[in-house]
Amino acid sequence: MFEATGPVLIEDEFLRDGLQNEKRLFSLDEKLGFLADLEAAGVTRIQLGSFVHPKWVPQMADTDELFTRITRTPGVTYSALVLNKAGLERALAVKVPHLSISVSASETHSRKNTNRSVDEGRAVIAPVIERALSEGVEVRAGIQSAFGCGFEGAIDPEVVIDIARQWSALGAQEINLADTAGLANPRQVYDLCQRVHDAVRPDCALSLHLHDTRGLGIANMVAGLQAGVRVFDTALGGLGGCPFIPKAAGNIATEDVAFALSEMGIKTGIDWRALKPAIARAEALLGRRLPGRMGHITQPGEPDTELGECA
Amino acid sequence: MFEATGPVLIEDEFLRDGLQNEKRLFSLDEKLGFLADLEAAGVTRIQLGSFVHPKWVPQMADTDELFTRITRTPGVTYSALVLNKAGLERALAVKVPHLSISVSASETHSRKNTNRSVDEGRAVIAPVIERALSEGVEVRAGIQSAFGCGFEGAIDPEVVIDIARQWSALGAQEINLADTAGLANPRQVYDLCQRVHDAVRPDCALSLHLHDTRGLGIANMVAGLQAGVRVFDTALGGLGGCPFIPKAAGNIATEDVAFALSEMGIKTGIDWRALKPAIARAEALLGRRLPGRMGHITQPGEPDTELGECA
Repeated sequence: MFEATGPVLIEDEFLRDGLQNEKRLFSLDEKLGFLADLEAAGVTRIQLGSFVHPKWVPQMADTDELFTRITRTPGVTYSALVLNKAGLERALAVKVPHLSISVSASETHSRKNTNRSVDEGRAVIAPVIERALSEGVEVRAGIQSAFGCGFEGAIDPEVVIDIARQWSALGAQEINLADTAGLANPRQVYDLCQRVHDAVRPDCALSLHLHDTRGLGIANMVAGLQAGVRVFDTALGGLGGCPFIPKAAGNIATEDVAFALSEMGIKTGIDWRALKPAIARAEALLGRRLPGRMGHITQPGEPDTELGECA
Repeated sequence: MFEATGPVLIEDEFLRDGLQNEKRLFSLDEKLGFLADLEAAGVTRIQLGSFVHPKWVPQMADTDELFTRITRTPGVTYSALVLNKAGLERALAVKVPHLSISVSASETHSRKNTNRSVDEGRAVIAPVIERALSEGVEVRAGIQSAFGCGFEGAIDPEVVIDIARQWSALGAQEINLADTAGLANPRQVYDLCQRVHDAVRPDCALSLHLHDTRGLGIANMVAGLQAGVRVFDTALGGLGGCPFIPKAAGNIATEDVAFALSEMGIKTGIDWRALKPAIARAEALLGRRLPGRMGHITQPGEPDTELGECA
């Protein structure tokens, strides 16, 4: 049930999924500062931004320049999100070595985001994945709204599995299932991850992108772990989430996931305590408390512990 | 892994673990109002208060009177917490049909709370459990700090198992393992629940009292469910928690647990949506937002939905 497992890889998306929903535009230097903090704490895969139209997502307009400014540390994977061919060309121009490329499994979500049906989206994205792979880029091919859709409700798992099978056949190194609106539950995560795992190449990794909207983010992560998933997307401080859900929480928090896995005896290479100053800086810049827990809590025995005991 | 299970029983402790940490004293009428809301939403076991010294916990000083004021609905269990013989006599005087009676598995916690060692606590509490049972009261015998201690850190599982074995031998109908400070992780919950289950009478139920301090509350609940636990303590709005952890969250929220279980196809009998007005009233009375999620979020398709979709 909770067997000992090998290490888990965490992809931090603070700089992309986190910042893209914020009104405040972060400067390149601020982004580079957070990148340095993440690396210093041991995060080894970091999504720096997306190559989407700056008119729609101005927070990501400097992703090209960001990639030219970074110092690439051996052992760290610098990634970005791409949603069409134009974005891929921009990513290739600045030598992004790892890309997330995805479609939505929800007809409504797909039409709202891209004005395409799911099948049209697949037809457009398949050659983008192929071209990225042919250029030697590592591709993580994604499926948004894989566990449900804020507009439609339930999503047919067969659609998700069919897309995963296609992405696997194209040669993607990893399939990412995204709970875009935070609608998944642990049983569903376990079941769908197992079914997708069975449908894709044995050497194709499976990863989960989870939002904590309903407080099930960490429970869903653990269910994914039980189903054999070893790659999870997170964001420093639990930043992120949908601009259409004003009260919702964001991505599962990097520090909380690293802490939870560490408590369960699973290595991530991340020192969650080392992320605290970065979380505090993000909160100062954004002017609000972020939803992640471990940035605000210390452990028993730590010198600055706030932890007492209850009657 | 996530087999279909029978129904889960939720014990709401808003009126006890929730209110005991609040500076604001709730009136009897306010308490009766929340009790009515909980019952109307389908909560069938409710902990109304504790019989402890009013000098130490003034919020619970009217527990005796509260029990004389309630209308006992068939099918609803009205419970209270007792920590010594004097408390039991008060509970018996007002005909409390179900009691939680507990000790701590942590030497330091036990000494701070009761000025007794763990063994001294066991010696004092055992006859209290026996007398309650002999009076026909249903007893849920508890073990506080079962998963760790804010003062000591790790707690030896053998101590917990040994206390559980003793409580089971005394005839307690249920053993409650309490993560008093919110230190448990899912692997630990799964393992300890299995071991305690194996150590107690087959007809002795197992229940979990979880705090969400580190964001693992729901994940721990799911792990308990996987280990066969079918009774969970919760509090409306996620109120509760330790006065010594100013930033910590409280109990796992009744509405979040009912929602999570419902999403996983497990019946609780609770309509979590029906709890929303009570959550809003608690927040108005306390002057702050409570940590529970589902009191603030609606589901896709609901007319008042705040839920959009993310890019």
